[in-house]
Order: sequence, then structure tokens, then C-alpha cells
Amino acid sequence: MTLDVDPSAAADPAALDAADPLAPFRRRFVIPDPDLVYLDGNSLGRPPLRAIEHVSRVATEEWAGQLIRGWEHWLAAPSRVGDLLGTGLLGARPDEVVICDSTTVDFYRLASAALDARPGRGTIVTDRANFPTDRYVLEGLARDRDREIAWLDPDPIDGPTADAVAAALAAHPGDVALVTLSHVNYRSAAIADLPAITGLAHDAGALVLWDLSHSAGAVPVGLAEHGVDLAVGCTYKYLNGGPGAPAYLYIRSDLQGELPNPIQGWFGQADQFEMGQGFRPRPGIAGWLTGTPGMLGLAAAEEGIRVSVEAGIDAIRAKGIALTEYAIALHDAWLAPLGFSLGSPREAARRGAHVAVRRSDARELTRRLIEAGVVPDFRAPDSVRLGLSPLTTSFSDVARGVATLARLAGGGPADG
Amino acid sequence: MTLDVDPSAAADPAALDAADPLAPFRRRFVIPDPDLVYLDGNSLGRPPLRAIEHVSRVATEEWAGQLIRGWEHWLAAPSRVGDLLGTGLLGARPDEVVICDSTTVDFYRLASAALDARPGRGTIVTDRANFPTDRYVLEGLARDRDREIAWLDPDPIDGPTADAVAAALAAHPGDVALVTLSHVNYRSAAIADLPAITGLAHDAGALVLWDLSHSAGAVPVGLAEHGVDLAVGCTYKYLNGGPGAPAYLYIRSDLQGELPNPIQGWFGQADQFEMGQGFRPRPGIAGWLTGTPGMLGLAAAEEGIRVSVEAGIDAIRAKGIALTEYAIALHDAWLAPLGFSLGSPREAARRGAHVAVRRSDARELTRRLIEAGVVPDFRAPDSVRLGLSPLTTSFSDVARGVATLARLAGGGPADG
Repeated sequence: MTLDVDPSAAADPAALDAADPLAPFRRRFVIPDPDLVYLDGNSLGRPPLRAIEHVSRVATEEWAGQLIRGWEHWLAAPSRVGDLLGTGLLGARPDEVVICDSTTVDFYRLASAALDARPGRGTIVTDRANFPTDRYVLEGLARDRDREIAWLDPDPIDGPTADAVAAALAAHPGDVALVTLSHVNYRSAAIADLPAITGLAHDAGALVLWDLSHSAGAVPVGLAEHGVDLAVGCTYKYLNGGPGAPAYLYIRSDLQGELPNPIQGWFGQADQFEMGQGFRPRPGIAGWLTGTPGMLGLAAAEEGIRVSVEAGIDAIRAKGIALTEYAIALHDAWLAPLGFSLGSPREAARRGAHVAVRRSDARELTRRLIEAGVVPDFRAPDSVRLGLSPLTTSFSDVARGVATLARLAGGGPADG
Repeated sequence: MTLDVDPSAAADPAALDAADPLAPFRRRFVIPDPDLVYLDGNSLGRPPLRAIEHVSRVATEEWAGQLIRGWEHWLAAPSRVGDLLGTGLLGARPDEVVICDSTTVDFYRLASAALDARPGRGTIVTDRANFPTDRYVLEGLARDRDREIAWLDPDPIDGPTADAVAAALAAHPGDVALVTLSHVNYRSAAIADLPAITGLAHDAGALVLWDLSHSAGAVPVGLAEHGVDLAVGCTYKYLNGGPGAPAYLYIRSDLQGELPNPIQGWFGQADQFEMGQGFRPRPGIAGWLTGTPGMLGLAAAEEGIRVSVEAGIDAIRAKGIALTEYAIALHDAWLAPLGFSLGSPREAARRGAHVAVRRSDARELTRRLIEAGVVPDFRAPDSVRLGLSPLTTSFSDVARGVATLARLAGGGPADG
């Protein structure tokens, strides 16, 4: 995507919208209140029309009409949708991604398997700014498996650097089993240097596990290109899969046979319906399925993923950069004079699709923004997080959102 | 419930239906093809009308309209629905049941925690006839935690007895950490002696974990009355929660503080949205939530559970007995002469809400039954399983189903 106009603070947002090749995608979503400025699609994306239709079809036609016979086609859905996501948006090979469970459960399973695959190594590397559920799961694993966590304490804006990971690996020579980080930080949007950190982990004999929750559907990942071992993520943010939509896990093909699945469930069993003695996993990533997948949630997730695949990750990334550049320009013009500071990297290549703006009264400002019809998210201690979902957020949304924030904070565009 | 007519083979099924106080509940379900005889509601129950409506409301009003603000009320749903199920159908106390994840994942978590709570004990007692996912999970746990499984090998119809459990406990004195069985066997419908087995496990210092998937919503459980430690189950069978509906877990109140949760997720964290350092679980059963709950699936499950609560477990149980007595009477009259044998206990008190009828060509007969508009399930090696969901199965369904089976098997009611 190229924009014919520069997203500076002086730009006309309507002109930016007119030049946006992804603008027509907004019409594929259910938007009941067009006056609402929704800047939290990275917490919960908007529903695609086809997601609503597909959920309705599963409920009224398939569940009610096919009953148990629905499983004749439902059975294939976790792998089919996993491949759509993996090959369409994450740069994985076929049969490396499957949709199942929650990010928390998938993260636990892959981290647990990674520890088992590196016996005798006692250290897990992660960072204090990582998403809470990842940190909490690792704390439980460290307790139960008698491992230590080497916590990185990165810059709150720039996130963990490759140098910091290298230092942690050097401090625990031959003892790091797992390096696990978020690809895009949930607060600052900093993009971690996935290729470099993956390479460093491999050089040290460790496995690497990336949480893609804030990058999938927003930035390219290149799982195969960079030789990533393991990844997980959710589908309810930029992938617009619905509230609590099922998660996904990725295991590089050549690792699938050597990692032990801690939760051996009947949906991962070869000849599942023979119900025989002894767990024998299905070949490929489907062997990592656990229990019965929830088909209502999966139907919505499938359509959310599909609309992003149809838009194309490169076009999505280009618009994400343009939206965040525009938001930063407006921050500099309207918010910085009011005492705000930018909580996200300035360099576009180092930033996902959201922008954090910081002021000490961010919690109260967020509450007042929502009352005023602008919905961002607050992230402790001091960030108003503006999530700019490329398929549903317009440049006009950004302008109205930041202008409203400036007005509530005591200024306004005229003061900029 | 009392039936004014005896469900013998000579009874008029229309008269049985007319005398059935739960017959009106059938109208609360979506039944697009009234000619289909559906005898697999214990694999996937039919959709309640209100489940379809609630799913639609979550999708079109809450997701689309409230967006992230939906979590203000969604957050309470796993505990609210858990209490509805626990106190309404399982005989649990408030704050002992929560809806989350799949049966497989919940079973893993509780079994894992039970092993941690009994350190130094090396044996798990279960049975070869237990549901596959439970067996596979236990095999993985035994491998990863260096434990042995003491396998009971029960009678295929009567299931594991209290005497067999007592013998297994006596064979491993002081070494059994966990006894885990299904309350109602998925193949034969045998009801295990939950009070006696729970007591035996406690006498031996072991914890007990019951899988309620085939009993919840069909037979009373009495979790509190019998002092059960741990339980799990699914909501898509007799609870009519939809394909892959979320599961539930139960932990007796006084155990909740001492069992370590192996998967510490952000939905189990006190002050979840402060996203601070260090996992500190929410008090009560909500501390066992893991990742973000899928709200589409939970909405359907809530309505499925609610309709059973409204019917009342005692009325449901009475009808389940009447339906299975009738099916057995028809088996004896029409199927036994054709070489079938009964694969379920004859004593009503020892039998859940399904009936297995056995003949060596059961797989082929099941296929032909489905073609003929009667949908049971096949269970290897030789059972046609007739699931008789009390809220949606009529006595006429039973008569037509068994008559069709008899005809396909070479006989018929006239031959009986």
C-alpha cells in the first residue's frame, strides 16, 4: 500500500481515508454505531459480518440440524483454520499451526514441552514487561519443575533487546532451556527482534517460544523464514475472532515428533473414535489437539482470520504503519504540549499497530474518553493505549480520538 | 415424576408420552426435523431455543455493540454459570464449580494438582473402561511425573466396583495419590458407586476425581453430600451446551486453598487488569480460571444448563429411568430374539440415561440406522448406544428407534 498523502498532523483525515486502499474492508464488519471511535481492536476486534453469519449457521443449521453428524466436517476445522492462519498470515508451513484451547493453555503446553525437551537445563528467559498470563504460567512451571526464571527488565518503551537476551544467555551458559517473549509488546507495541533473538537462543541450545497475540494480523511474523521453534497467540485481537475466541499454537515441523505433549487428549488421538487403549498421537500438528473444540467460537475465528488473509498482511502492515505514524504526529502536535509523552517506539519498523500515550492521569482520562464515545484501553500505570486495527480503524477515527483526548486533557487541536 | 402407565413392551408409546410431565420441555428445543429419531443426545444434545437466542445476542448485540465493554459483564459468567450448574444439578456448594476450558484440560489440571497434593505417593487408580481422554491424560501424567497407573479391568457392563477399588488400594498401601473414574460409564451407562468409592479413597488418604460427563444433567451427583474432592465434565451432552461447549471443574471448598493450579492464567489472577508482577489467585474457584473464556460457547452452555435446572434433576432422573426401562423392555421383546444382548445394567439404580445393545454387526447396523433416520452412536467393539436425553427424547422416539433397529437386524416388532 502507498498513501498519496503524508499522515502528518496537518493532513486532512478524510483525504487520508480516501487514499486508503483498505478502507473498503471496514464495510465487511458489523459497526452498529458509526459515531463510536473504537480504538481497542487490539483487545477485542470488531465482528466480521461473515463471522456473525457463520456462527448463526453453526447454531441453527449445523448444531440443530446435523446434530452429532456435524462432527463429520467439524473435525477438520482446527487444522483447516490453523493452516489458513499459519500459511496466510504467520509465514508458517502447512501443518504447523492448529487452532485450540486458550493462549494460556497453549502457552503452558509448549513451554512445558520445551522444558522436557531440554532436560538438565534449569533456566527460562523472559521479561518483566511480558504479557501477564505468560509470566504467571512461567512462574507456575518454574515452581513445579524446579526451574529459575531469568527476568529481563527492559526499557518500558523499547522492550527487550537482542543484546539483553544475549547477556542473559551468557550469564547462564548451557543452562537456558527456553527463551520466551512477546513479538509485539502489549503496552508499548515495541516489536522484538524476532530473527536475532531466535538465532541467539538457538546458538545457546535453547528453544524459543513467541507469543504472537499482538502481532498476528498486524505485522508479518515469518515463522518459517526465521526458523522459529514454537509460537502461540490469540485470535480475538487483530484477527477479529470474537470474545474469548480460541487460540492457536505453532510447532515447527521437525520438532513436532520430539516434543512430548503434556496434555494428551482424545482429539489428538489417532483413530480417535475407536477409543482404544494407549495414546498414539495423530501425525502432524493435529496430534496437539486436546479436548473437543468449541465450534461456535471456531466458526467466528475462521471468518476473522479469513478477512485478514484476504486483505493481505503486507497491506495490513502498511496501513498499520500509516495509522500509527498519524497518531504519533497528532500526539506530538496536540498531546505533547499538554504534558503527554509517547509510550511507543518512534521508529515505524520497531512498532506494531498500536500507540501508547502517557500521562499520570491516564486511568481517569481513559474513563472520560469512553464516556465521550472514544474507546481506547488503559494500561497501568500511565498509558492510554490507542489500538489501530488496520481493517476497521479510519484515519478520521484517529483524528477524532486524539482530538477528544486532547480536549479532555485540557487542550485541543486548536492549541496544538 | 410418576408415570401412570408401566413402560413395558406392550405399552402404547403415545400413552407414555401423554403421561410424561417433562414432555412439554421438548418444545424448548430447536427440532427442525421432527421425523428424525435422535438417540445421541449424550454425544451432542439438541440446542435449546434460548441457547440460539443467547448466542445471537452475544454476537450481534454484545460483541458488535459493546465491544471491549462487554467484559464488564462477561467476566462474571464463568462463575455465575458454574454456580447455576453446581448448585442446581451437581449438589455442590456455591463457589465450587466454574465453567472453563475443555474436559481434557480441566481433567489434566485437577489430576496434576492431586498428584502434587499427595507427594511421595506413586500410584493412580483408574479403569480400562474409562473414557479415552481421561486415560490418555493419565498416561501422559504418569510418564511426566514418574507415577504408575493401577488399571482396573472391570466387567464391561457393570463397570468398576467399590470392591475392585478397595482391592487396588489394598495392593498399594499408602501409595495411591488419586482414584479417578467416570461416574456413568460412556459405553454401558453403569453408575459407579460414587459414595462408597469416594469413602474408600479417603480412608486410604487418596484424593478422588470424578468425570461427570455422562451423569451431569441425567442423574443426581451429590458432590457435597458425598464429600467428593474433585470433579470435571462437559456441557455438550445432557446439558445441551452445543458442539465443543466449555467444560467445568469442581473443587471442594476446603481443598481450593491447598491444591496448586498447574496452569496459572491471567483470568485466575486477583486484580487481573492491573497486570502486575507475581501470580496471586482470585479467591474461590475463580482462581482456577486460566485464559480468556469463549463467550459464544459459554452463552449456549448457560442456556443448556438453565433448562435442565428448570426441569429439575429429580424429574429428569425419573424420566431417564422410565425411558431406559422402556428401551430395555423393547430390547428384550424385539432385539434379544435376533441375537442382541443388553450392554447396560438391568437394575435401574445402577444405570444412567443411555442403553447399549450389543451384536457383532453393531457398526454396520449403526450406519444403516442413520440412513434410516434413526441416529444412535456406535461404540466399539459391538454396541449400538441409545442415548435417551430426558428433556428431548420421547417414548415414541424409543419405540421407533428400537423397531427400526429390529427391522434392519432382520426382525421387527411383529417378530417380537
